[in-house]
Amino acid sequence: MAEIMSVLFFHTMKYKVSAPRDPSSDRFILSKGHAAPILYAAWAEAGLFPTSELLNLRKFDSDLEGHPTPRLNFIDVGTGSLGQGLSVAAGMAYVGKVYDKASYRVYCLVGDGESAEGSIWEALHFASHYNLDNLCVIIDINRLGQSEPTALQHNMETYRKRLEAFGFNALVVDGHDVEELAKAFHEAQNTKERPTALLAKTFKGKNFPNIEDLENWHGKPLGGKADEVIQHLTSLLVNPGPLGLHPQKPLVEDAPAVDISNIKLNTPPNYKLGEEVATRLAYGTALAKIAANNNRVIALDGDTKNSTFSEKIKTVDPSRYVECYIAEQNLVGVATGAACRDRTVAFVSTFATFFTRAYDQIRMGAISQSNVNFVGSHCGVSIGEDGPSQMGLEDIALFRSIPGATVFYPSDAVSTERAIELAANTKGICFIRTSRPNTPVLYANDEPLSIGKAKVVKSSPKDQVLVIGAGITLHEGVKAAEELAKAGINVRVLDPFTIKPIDAATIIKNAKEVGGRIVSVEDHYPEGGLGEAVASAVALERNIILKKLAVPKVPRSGPPNVLLDAFGISARNIVAAVQEVLKL
Amino acid sequence: MAEIMSVLFFHTMKYKVSAPRDPSSDRFILSKGHAAPILYAAWAEAGLFPTSELLNLRKFDSDLEGHPTPRLNFIDVGTGSLGQGLSVAAGMAYVGKVYDKASYRVYCLVGDGESAEGSIWEALHFASHYNLDNLCVIIDINRLGQSEPTALQHNMETYRKRLEAFGFNALVVDGHDVEELAKAFHEAQNTKERPTALLAKTFKGKNFPNIEDLENWHGKPLGGKADEVIQHLTSLLVNPGPLGLHPQKPLVEDAPAVDISNIKLNTPPNYKLGEEVATRLAYGTALAKIAANNNRVIALDGDTKNSTFSEKIKTVDPSRYVECYIAEQNLVGVATGAACRDRTVAFVSTFATFFTRAYDQIRMGAISQSNVNFVGSHCGVSIGEDGPSQMGLEDIALFRSIPGATVFYPSDAVSTERAIELAANTKGICFIRTSRPNTPVLYANDEPLSIGKAKVVKSSPKDQVLVIGAGITLHEGVKAAEELAKAGINVRVLDPFTIKPIDAATIIKNAKEVGGRIVSVEDHYPEGGLGEAVASAVALERNIILKKLAVPKVPRSGPPNVLLDAFGISARNIVAAVQEVLKL
Repeated sequence: MAEIMSVLFFHTMKYKVSAPRDPSSDRFILSKGHAAPILYAAWAEAGLFPTSELLNLRKFDSDLEGHPTPRLNFIDVGTGSLGQGLSVAAGMAYVGKVYDKASYRVYCLVGDGESAEGSIWEALHFASHYNLDNLCVIIDINRLGQSEPTALQHNMETYRKRLEAFGFNALVVDGHDVEELAKAFHEAQNTKERPTALLAKTFKGKNFPNIEDLENWHGKPLGGKADEVIQHLTSLLVNPGPLGLHPQKPLVEDAPAVDISNIKLNTPPNYKLGEEVATRLAYGTALAKIAANNNRVIALDGDTKNSTFSEKIKTVDPSRYVECYIAEQNLVGVATGAACRDRTVAFVSTFATFFTRAYDQIRMGAISQSNVNFVGSHCGVSIGEDGPSQMGLEDIALFRSIPGATVFYPSDAVSTERAIELAANTKGICFIRTSRPNTPVLYANDEPLSIGKAKVVKSSPKDQVLVIGAGITLHEGVKAAEELAKAGINVRVLDPFTIKPIDAATIIKNAKEVGGRIVSVEDHYPEGGLGEAVASAVALERNIILKKLAVPKVPRSGPPNVLLDAFGISARNIVAAVQEVLKL
Repeated sequence: MAEIMSVLFFHTMKYKVSAPRDPSSDRFILSKGHAAPILYAAWAEAGLFPTSELLNLRKFDSDLEGHPTPRLNFIDVGTGSLGQGLSVAAGMAYVGKVYDKASYRVYCLVGDGESAEGSIWEALHFASHYNLDNLCVIIDINRLGQSEPTALQHNMETYRKRLEAFGFNALVVDGHDVEELAKAFHEAQNTKERPTALLAKTFKGKNFPNIEDLENWHGKPLGGKADEVIQHLTSLLVNPGPLGLHPQKPLVEDAPAVDISNIKLNTPPNYKLGEEVATRLAYGTALAKIAANNNRVIALDGDTKNSTFSEKIKTVDPSRYVECYIAEQNLVGVATGAACRDRTVAFVSTFATFFTRAYDQIRMGAISQSNVNFVGSHCGVSIGEDGPSQMGLEDIALFRSIPGATVFYPSDAVSTERAIELAANTKGICFIRTSRPNTPVLYANDEPLSIGKAKVVKSSPKDQVLVIGAGITLHEGVKAAEELAKAGINVRVLDPFTIKPIDAATIIKNAKEVGGRIVSVEDHYPEGGLGEAVASAVALERNIILKKLAVPKVPRSGPPNVLLDAFGISARNIVAAVQEVLKL
């Protein structure tokens, strides 16, 4: 990759070494993150930091980590889980072309091994579909994977056919020929209406005696062979003196200033108490309201916009909606790219369970210090007849496991609108879980809601059990409380609002007031969801017991109410659980 | 799809209606699972059950669910999360060609909307790379997605170029022309060394007046229009009488009988107590041992076989290893296909964190009643310098959320070998978490180990706290216990062996014996892992408190021991936690 990086950083790309995050500078994404050392070397050579720093590679007190992360100011997103960089680059290019309408270009270097990832082909399709001629992908085709040669080895013609079929201007080049590379990048800059791919034929360890193009050198230091190799490489230099290379600055600085702070609903929630509204619909309403107030709010979806209601943003401005079709990995990657460097506030929606398709991208989002907001609809068995493949039953577990994430699970339309408003202003990954069925409005339009603050929706001084539910199960909890009241048993009902962070103090306080008995109930599998969030919140308390109700196995098709009852999370099941814990 | 299904089920495919799972019959996978009604209708028409049953579609007491699941005996795997069926079909075709060496063919019907999923392109590449000429994919190109037209609409030439570039014999056909379809399937049967794709141009709602090729009909019943449509369709019938169609039986029954029961290590574990062995290496050893004893044990990996040690199966039989390259979604899908109908015992390995890439496929595996075994290496911060993108810190949460899954977390080489042996014989999804560093052997070679049974590795009558760790943190727990003993504090140390099911009885019994104090410690994020499994296990016990130690945020590169300590899970941190809970 030495020649590719040299041409890119000291001939082709236009950027400010003094301000690596400058909005008008060209962007570079190293999708094959394990090649981090050469990226660090390029920036050192460009003058960002002393080359002596490179010797701190992979040390605990250095930000020159094993794979690139945005702890370094010249890294926009973390890479290292393969095949993800191109979606991110495509998202950045989309923003550059459609929203910034600026001159900067986006370069993405992809390994041939990682080009086997389907997410690469999703991204290639996206880039050509949206005519991202400001995107240039370089595939480093060095023939060798980690454990054996790649499937296509140096079959350059197959790469060319595939890239052309996916709508790219595909250029096969000798990846070790500096002039050929420079010309190809020039052609890429001048190719309009479609992105360009440089298919660079390279040899791993080029010019390393007895190492070039051989297997079993992936990720291995040269050790005792280093001196010999360096000596040989030095002997090949035509001009061994200091290079005196200087990067080019941007020709024009035409990326607009952007303000994504303090985003508000343009009108407050407007519902009547008890009115039946699906929280997924309230999401669409809130999305349109914040989009009306800030022109950098965008929505991305994977052909479910009429189910998630993300399509409502189109009523404000059709250009603020990005259709990503049925390709959830790229959907998330594009959003990560669109939101990085604070260029947009991105809301990504699909059925909650289909975020499992992009768990790796979401995980890398946390490493990338991403602020993307995810909205998952159609959670749980309450979707009914479509059956288990469409039911989000592990999505809370997924998003809770993301470091620094905020997990909202609003139970009515008012709190959903506030969750969207809060998410738009919250750093880190946010997830908002929405439901398919209509549920009654619980809160006044001016009810204050905040992250990590639970709401007690029903209480009396005589309460004996604390029931904690969210979404559909909060409403089942209220029904159970009414039923139990007829039998003279009082229960308190709590809406956690956010599952992460969970309001441990309010839960513990209320649990203690009712004799230390909690029943949690969730439209989710038993692991990693609401019940375990509550279990963790009370883990250090003696004298609090918790009975968890959750969907215990793969459910099936049927009417929502039948399923809630059959899988143990209906009002009837809650009544039985309350009676059970009262006996313990 | 009516014409495609008719030709397939009553002209092209060879199968026994009396025995839908017959090993020598052709297989059919409906990747676009939302088209389930026509699949049910085809089997009813073939005579498997009365057509009157079709009226029970999506009812709670019918197995004719909204999307197909193997509750029905004519369904091999569940579908409904789009883009997954082709990987499964490719896995079935691989087994048919390479292991069964049989004549049956595999057909997979893919929607054009779902062909945007990267997993489709991973599967296409796999199928052509391995010359799966017994596989035939049909793409139903009806131009319309759920919420808008697909990106490629009826651009048949682009589909053809893409499929050809991916190594397929690509045939563009009129999907409503029965004779053309029959000819194309015939050509597919006679095309050797490469798979065939029928690119079927179709119109959604063909011949439905005022509905054909229009948007906004996805997933909607005809309602009041049904009578008119049926009348019109009936008027078009040339021969309106009973059809008298009969499927063809297999010409030869050449799929061998297979026995995958009672799989054993061919020699018992052979280690010395205290010997330092990485559990990932013990996996490779055990895999080779069970493969030597049963010729249907296979291993699949995504170019990490020299890190996970799955490559050791090649020492027994190179053909038992399936290289899936860097495409984890297809890796898992192929394994699901290979293992379905009990044709093989499949072990899938990669770095634990990269299973996040295939969470959706693993989730669908549970709905598919799959028995695939997953082995995730390189868990946690203990991998060291490679940094967070390579660290499995959410994999326990992922696999615990899978219904019916068994999650092994062996802490030494002996228990790893037994975990592999147990997993090979256990129904449902199994996950075995292995570690990168060497750790000492704890158990005698003949130690009995079983699912859901914990081991107390250190105890005394004077113990005051129960420390629960697994893998690297179990060894840190032992070190902490030794350190604390010097200060006169005795702690008990417990190895859960399986995290799901977790041995609640042994944990509760031991916790009660030490005053109700537990410290859990895991090389994993705090959510959904060991700590929350323990929290759930003791949730109904008053007087047990739990202090959870886990990796609290995105970690970074550094030496393993430095990271264990910096992220709060080292022996030193355990000592501090024990001292803290003793004060509560």
